[in-house]
Amino acid sequence: MKPIQVGLMGFGTVGTGVFNVLQRNQAEIKRRAGRGIEVSMVSRRNTALAQEVVGDRATVVADARAIIANPDIDIVVELIGGYDLAKELVLEAIAAGKHVVTANKALLAVHGTEIFAAASAKGVMVAFEAAVAGGIPIIKSLREGLTANRIQWIAGIINGTTNFILSEMRDKGLDFEVVLKEAQRLGYAEADPTFDIEGVDAAHKLTLMSAIAFGVPVQFDKAHIEGITKLSSVDIKYAEQLGYRIKLLGITKRTPKGIELRVHPCLIPAKRLIANVEGAMNAVVVNGDAVGTTLYYGKGAGSEPTGSAVIADLVDITRLHTADAAQRVPHLAFQPDAMSDTPVLPMGDVVTSYYLRLRVADEAGVLARVTGILAEAGISIDAVLQREADEVGGEGSTQTDLIILTHDCAEAKMDAAIAQMQALPTVLQSITRIRKEELA
Amino acid sequence: MKPIQVGLMGFGTVGTGVFNVLQRNQAEIKRRAGRGIEVSMVSRRNTALAQEVVGDRATVVADARAIIANPDIDIVVELIGGYDLAKELVLEAIAAGKHVVTANKALLAVHGTEIFAAASAKGVMVAFEAAVAGGIPIIKSLREGLTANRIQWIAGIINGTTNFILSEMRDKGLDFEVVLKEAQRLGYAEADPTFDIEGVDAAHKLTLMSAIAFGVPVQFDKAHIEGITKLSSVDIKYAEQLGYRIKLLGITKRTPKGIELRVHPCLIPAKRLIANVEGAMNAVVVNGDAVGTTLYYGKGAGSEPTGSAVIADLVDITRLHTADAAQRVPHLAFQPDAMSDTPVLPMGDVVTSYYLRLRVADEAGVLARVTGILAEAGISIDAVLQREADEVGGEGSTQTDLIILTHDCAEAKMDAAIAQMQALPTVLQSITRIRKEELA
Repeated sequence: MKPIQVGLMGFGTVGTGVFNVLQRNQAEIKRRAGRGIEVSMVSRRNTALAQEVVGDRATVVADARAIIANPDIDIVVELIGGYDLAKELVLEAIAAGKHVVTANKALLAVHGTEIFAAASAKGVMVAFEAAVAGGIPIIKSLREGLTANRIQWIAGIINGTTNFILSEMRDKGLDFEVVLKEAQRLGYAEADPTFDIEGVDAAHKLTLMSAIAFGVPVQFDKAHIEGITKLSSVDIKYAEQLGYRIKLLGITKRTPKGIELRVHPCLIPAKRLIANVEGAMNAVVVNGDAVGTTLYYGKGAGSEPTGSAVIADLVDITRLHTADAAQRVPHLAFQPDAMSDTPVLPMGDVVTSYYLRLRVADEAGVLARVTGILAEAGISIDAVLQREADEVGGEGSTQTDLIILTHDCAEAKMDAAIAQMQALPTVLQSITRIRKEELA
Repeated sequence: MKPIQVGLMGFGTVGTGVFNVLQRNQAEIKRRAGRGIEVSMVSRRNTALAQEVVGDRATVVADARAIIANPDIDIVVELIGGYDLAKELVLEAIAAGKHVVTANKALLAVHGTEIFAAASAKGVMVAFEAAVAGGIPIIKSLREGLTANRIQWIAGIINGTTNFILSEMRDKGLDFEVVLKEAQRLGYAEADPTFDIEGVDAAHKLTLMSAIAFGVPVQFDKAHIEGITKLSSVDIKYAEQLGYRIKLLGITKRTPKGIELRVHPCLIPAKRLIANVEGAMNAVVVNGDAVGTTLYYGKGAGSEPTGSAVIADLVDITRLHTADAAQRVPHLAFQPDAMSDTPVLPMGDVVTSYYLRLRVADEAGVLARVTGILAEAGISIDAVLQREADEVGGEGSTQTDLIILTHDCAEAKMDAAIAQMQALPTVLQSITRIRKEELA
C-alpha cells in the first residue's frame, strides 16, 4: 500500500524533529502502523532553510496553503503556532477533508470548540498529543488509558521553562531575575518569556487536560493564571524548611460545586514524586476514583520529544482514517453529544491550604493579633515558623518573618483575612501568599 | 444501542473491582465509549459468594464455559489466573469468536504466541493492559504512545510485594525474613510468596513489555530471573552511603548483539525518580530514541486499579470490535508479519556495572590482591568503600567489609573475576554481587 502522505505546515524545531524521526525510524514505524508514513511536503517562508534539511526527500513550499490544496496529502500537521493564521489553516485543512495533527495548545485552548465541531462535521480527526507535555503520552493516557475512572483531579508541571527556573532558584539560592537571564542564555527561556513565566502556556495545556478529564468544553478564559515572577528565593527556602517544594502547577479538580482550573506557584510535600521533578522536565499527576494516583513524566518540549508525540498521532490516524466516527476516540474524550456543562469555579470558591509570609515588627503580641484574625475567620493553622529577628534582618534588626501554614479554607475567606492582617500596623510589607496542595 | 455484553470468568478481587467500577461509573464510561458496557454474566465456583456481590444485576454461573457458550456475550474477561484452565478457556473463547481481556501475565508470557496467533486467525482482540503494572496504562503507552521511537530500554518496578519489602528493609533496617512476615500479615504478600519474591511475576510482566517494545515474540523461558531473598539489609545500607537505592528491577534493553531480558535486584542512583518509588507502588521507565526518558507510575495491583485497566481494554474493544484488522492496534504492537527474531542475550553477554561486597580479613595487602584480580580482568573500579574493622565486627574484630563499585563489564568476565577473588584465603565469606544501572 502507498505510504500515507503527510504535509508539515511550519518547519521549525518541531517540524524538523518530526521529519528526522520519521526518516530515521521509518522501518520501525511501518512495522507498527502496517503502512508507511511519509512527509511529502513541508512549508516554510524561508524555503532555503527547509530545503537544507529535507533535500530531495520532500517538496518545499513557501505557502502552507499549497499543502492543503494538494489532493495527495492525507494529513496536515500544523506547527506554525499562534492564533490567526494557524486557525485559518486548520479550518481550511478540515474543510478540504484533511486530518489534522497540531502541537498548538494556544489555538485549541481558545478555539478548540469551533475547531473540533468543524472536524466532527467533516468527519476528520484533529489530534493534539504534542500540545500537552511534549513527548509524554498524557492525552492518550487520559482519553483512553483511564476511561474507567471518574477523574478527580490533575496536577501537572507542564512548563519546562518555569520548572527549570524554580529548580535553579532552589539549588543555587538565586533570585528569579538572575535565573531567568541564565535560562535565556542556555536556551531554556525565550527572548520574550512572558507566556512561560506568567503561566499562560501552562494554562493552555491545563485547559485541554481539564476538558478531556471532565468532559467539559475548553474554557481558557475561565482559568485563574499566576506565574512565577513574584516568587522570592526566601519563600523557596522557608518552604524547604517546612518539608515542601514550590512548583508552578496547573491544577484542575472536580468538586461538587464546579471545576477548579488554576495555574499558580504551589507548595507540595517534598516527599511526593512530582516534587522531585527537576530542571526542564514535565510531569502530570492524575487521580482517578478507580486507579488512584498515577504519574506521567518526561521531556515536555524539544524537537524530537515533541516530534515523538506528533508521530504517535500520525500512526493513530493512519490506523483509523478509514474508520467511522464510533470507532474513533472522540476529540475531547467524551462523545460530543455527552459533554457536561459543569461550570468552572470562580477563584474565590476554590478551597485549598496556604503558606503565608508576613514581614512583621519583632515585638510582643504580633503573633497573637495575626492568629486572632485567622481564628476569627475560621481558618485553622497547621504550622507556624517564627524566625529570630537577627536571622532575617541581621544583628539588631527589629523585623522578622512570620511563616504560617494553614489548613483548607475558601480563597475568598483567605483574601478577606489577608486584607485584615495587611492593615495591622505591625505588618510591615505586602503579605506573601502561596497556595499549598498535599496531592495525596 | 444495546450495551456491549461482558462475561467475567473468575470473580475474585479483580473481578469484583471490574464489576463495581462499571456499576459506579457506568454513565461516565458510556459518555466516553458512546455505548454502554454491561457485565451480564460472572462465573465463580462458589456461586453464593459471587451472588452476594452482583445481586440480580448479572447471572452467576459456576462453570466459566457457560459464558463462552452464551451467544449474547461479546467480550469475555479471563480473571482465573494460572496456566492450564485459563489457557483452555481463552482459546475456547477465541474459537467462539469472543474478544478476550485478561490480566493473566503468566499465561501470556508463556503461551502468548499461540494465543495471539489464534486470535488473529479468528479476527478477535486479546487485550492485556491489566497484566502489567495494574492500573498504569503502560501497555497503551508502549504500543500506541511511543510508536515513533526505537525503544532503547525499559526498567521497571513491576512487583509491588517486593518493592514494599525493600522499602521496609531500608526504612527500618530490618532483614528480609522479618519484613516478609510483616508483609504477609498486612496482605502485601501472599501465604506462598514464591512468585513475587523470586522475581517470577516481574519476569512475566517484563516479558510482555519486551515483546511490545522490540517487536519480538514473548520469550519467558529466556529471561534471567533473580529475586530478593538473598538481599541483606547491610547491602541496602552500604548502597545508601554510596548514593544508591536497591530495587528489584525488570530490565529489557536493545543492544547490537541482542535483547537483554533480566529481573534482579539492582543499585540505582538515589536521585532518579524511580529510586523514590516506595511501598507497593509500581513505576516503569521507558527510554526511546526520540522521546528520551519517560516514566509511568501508579498502583500495580489491587481490585479497582487493576479493574481500571480491564475496563480501559473493554472500552477500546467496544470502539473497535467492528473494525477490520488494519484499524486495530496489533496485539504485540508490531504487525504479526513484521516481528523480529533478534535473540535474547545469554546473561554472560550482558554488560552492566556492579556492586561487590567482600568479607575479608583485616590485614595488609587484601585490597591490593582483590583490585589486582579486577585489573587483570580488565574491569575498572568506580569507587571503593573500606570499613574500619571494628565498625563491622565490633571491638577487636579482625574482619571487615570491602565494598567495590565497578564500571561496565560483561557478566561472564565478572563471573570469572568473582571466582578468582572467592578463592583468595583472605576472602572469608561468599562474595555478594549486585548489578548496578545508572538509568540515565
